[in-house]
Amino acid sequence: MQATRIKELLNSDKTGFEVKINGWVRTKRVSKGFSFFEINDGSCLSNIQVVAEEDVPGYREIIEIGTGSSISVKGDLIDSPGKGQKYEIKAKEIVIYGKADPETYPLQKKRHSFEFLRDIAHLRARTNTFGAVFRLRNALSYAIHSFFQERGFVYIHTPIITGNDCEGAGQMFRVTTIDENAKEQVLTEADDFFGKRTALTVSGQLEGELLATALGNVYTFGPTFRAENSNTSRHLSEFWMVEPEMAFARLEDDIKLAEDFLKYIFKYCLDKCMEDMEFFDLRIKKGVIANLEDIVKSDFITVTYTEAVKILENSGEKFEFPVHWGVDLQSEHERYLTENEFKKPVILIDYPKEIKAFYMKNNDDNKTVRAMDVLVPGIGEIIGGSEREDNLDVLMQRMSELGLNPEDYWWYLDIRKFGSVPHAGFGLGFERTVQFVSGMQNIRDVIPFPRTPKSADF
Amino acid sequence: MQATRIKELLNSDKTGFEVKINGWVRTKRVSKGFSFFEINDGSCLSNIQVVAEEDVPGYREIIEIGTGSSISVKGDLIDSPGKGQKYEIKAKEIVIYGKADPETYPLQKKRHSFEFLRDIAHLRARTNTFGAVFRLRNALSYAIHSFFQERGFVYIHTPIITGNDCEGAGQMFRVTTIDENAKEQVLTEADDFFGKRTALTVSGQLEGELLATALGNVYTFGPTFRAENSNTSRHLSEFWMVEPEMAFARLEDDIKLAEDFLKYIFKYCLDKCMEDMEFFDLRIKKGVIANLEDIVKSDFITVTYTEAVKILENSGEKFEFPVHWGVDLQSEHERYLTENEFKKPVILIDYPKEIKAFYMKNNDDNKTVRAMDVLVPGIGEIIGGSEREDNLDVLMQRMSELGLNPEDYWWYLDIRKFGSVPHAGFGLGFERTVQFVSGMQNIRDVIPFPRTPKSADF
Repeated sequence: MQATRIKELLNSDKTGFEVKINGWVRTKRVSKGFSFFEINDGSCLSNIQVVAEEDVPGYREIIEIGTGSSISVKGDLIDSPGKGQKYEIKAKEIVIYGKADPETYPLQKKRHSFEFLRDIAHLRARTNTFGAVFRLRNALSYAIHSFFQERGFVYIHTPIITGNDCEGAGQMFRVTTIDENAKEQVLTEADDFFGKRTALTVSGQLEGELLATALGNVYTFGPTFRAENSNTSRHLSEFWMVEPEMAFARLEDDIKLAEDFLKYIFKYCLDKCMEDMEFFDLRIKKGVIANLEDIVKSDFITVTYTEAVKILENSGEKFEFPVHWGVDLQSEHERYLTENEFKKPVILIDYPKEIKAFYMKNNDDNKTVRAMDVLVPGIGEIIGGSEREDNLDVLMQRMSELGLNPEDYWWYLDIRKFGSVPHAGFGLGFERTVQFVSGMQNIRDVIPFPRTPKSADF
Repeated sequence: MQATRIKELLNSDKTGFEVKINGWVRTKRVSKGFSFFEINDGSCLSNIQVVAEEDVPGYREIIEIGTGSSISVKGDLIDSPGKGQKYEIKAKEIVIYGKADPETYPLQKKRHSFEFLRDIAHLRARTNTFGAVFRLRNALSYAIHSFFQERGFVYIHTPIITGNDCEGAGQMFRVTTIDENAKEQVLTEADDFFGKRTALTVSGQLEGELLATALGNVYTFGPTFRAENSNTSRHLSEFWMVEPEMAFARLEDDIKLAEDFLKYIFKYCLDKCMEDMEFFDLRIKKGVIANLEDIVKSDFITVTYTEAVKILENSGEKFEFPVHWGVDLQSEHERYLTENEFKKPVILIDYPKEIKAFYMKNNDDNKTVRAMDVLVPGIGEIIGGSEREDNLDVLMQRMSELGLNPEDYWWYLDIRKFGSVPHAGFGLGFERTVQFVSGMQNIRDVIPFPRTPKSADF
């Protein structure tokens, strides 16, 4: 008999038929003559209750199994007479696949701290919280793909191993086959596997631009890396990024795309993950559902950096970091704007060029660039993007100001030499988005096996 | 006025309305009093023909622009009186975004070799072949996600940077922040960023098993790496893999999943990419469409390794590599089975354990393991998978035979200690699949920016 997943059974519109399920025992209660098992198979947050009476074959052995054991249950799906669940299974046959010793199985009934669960990340997906997080992560991933596919964007895979010091953004991990402990004399970079120094990418954007100026609209969704020694609840050494890039597009198109995109993926979570979302709202962070609902129905507002600085200066707020024109905004400033001033998502544009990357398109004032940061209530910046400099001379000038060598970017400059077009794109940190939607405090708890300084387990 | 993508215009069911397009000039023909431009915007293989008469504003400058220039055209979509296209645009206004100097633009009208185009990979997506390849790559990617999502599989991101020497499969790239040229004395691995030696992953399978035995059914789709010095048309140093893993599943379920999966993604290409597929069939490899159609409608056949070896031994064929029980099958053997013997996809199972990985489930004969290789006509192996050893003692025994240290795999063994379940999965090399579908000969030509020994450009 084919097994059915528990999610499907709990959504059934009828009862009174024979079913088979597979899953892991979450809890067990043994009474005189019968016992209850709560079974979870990972398909959804809810367990299904199994009632076994003592005439079930092998009953004596069955009631000895502990939390974490895996079993298969055949029986009838019936309306549950008990409280707390709609349906239950009246067992006719229970097969034990694998036991879990109650003395050593680390996931006992009691509540465990997230710190403890990080040390057993190979098992933590068996808890309510992490099951919900990873199902949400899956839903968000597919929402991202669906959004872009419906709009004709081409999913591209940009290189993970790179010979470029891209944006010059942050420290990079070196990739090598040279062994520093080798007895032989030290080899040069030209002897290395790729014939030069290579590192793990910090962004697929530059390559994304190459493909956008051929295919039109493209997006990446892949891993990126930062070798920063930051031990915070917001930093990972390895994380996933989404980077769309559009040809024949200006900052205004980028703003529109970002707003449509966020509304789409948040609405997808509300539509497809409500059971898990309710769990987050109840157990992780009050208000995460309302926050998403508000964003989905609000009109984002676009404000220039210069206007935003004026608002902050005149706010009368005492900020930890004083604000004036030219400084990079801090989380406290971003949150003031979204949570106190506008009470909805804010898109800040036209930042001072000194605090933004070399590839952003110059404004005519020669002081600001066509950058945008999308700020949302409760977290601050969630998206950073820009129109790209498509004028070869202006770009060369900017690179020279910053001491970048044009020869290292010959292919990037070629795009401005041959049929250059206005183009724009943005980047979304995927884990921060999962954090935002779920309300999970620590970024290490929204990726299955986090990589952070001094930690690369599993 | 909002621009429309060319794909949409060519699929329009009416004409006689004003449109705007953006794109790059592929060819130009100037006649007396008017000129033709073929414009491509990357949305599809076909160009749209633009007719400009000499009364279009700026006509003199317009007819001077060359191949590769980017323009915007406003005009009326009309039925084309000429041969070779259904519709064309009668231009009313043409705006030049960026010119391309005919003297230096590398993509002139003539046919370029794939070798030459690899050196200008930043521009090659502007050619018919590479536009088609990258659109196909996109379609296959989304087909993969859709297949698994429709079946309730959870998309998971397994680590790229790993502290494990996983399967022991092939050479690995080291990831480090230690500089071998540093003046200081040589640092130990404990001083490295992650506090130990780390490398780029060769497979997400082991971590996939951890999550499958919590969430039920999962799949990865991410980059993997091999530091092999193989300069062939079938090897990349960086490539993408798809690895589903199912809990409560046996080899038979794995076989079923693999067959359903291949049929689904191939059918998706036939349904969604026919224009590009016809191009491949005509220009790249005759028969690629028929090959996919055959697979979609055939019933795959399952044959044991032992039976296959007998068939090969009795075939009377002269193979380059002689075949007998115990040897790993070569491409020539696999192709004989699919193309000569069975004339359809063949799933070989129950391989000798000596030629397969340590984690594959032992058969009762203690000589073979529950492995499967899916072979398809025209290429040979496209999928490799197995049921996994879920018995702790048998797995430990096998690891000890192979000299693997159980302490390095404590988390992998835990899964067999606590609620162990039968589980199975497989791996699909994504680039080889794109090669198979498109008929492209060299694997470097199906990924945007290939990484191979001595080459990591762009």
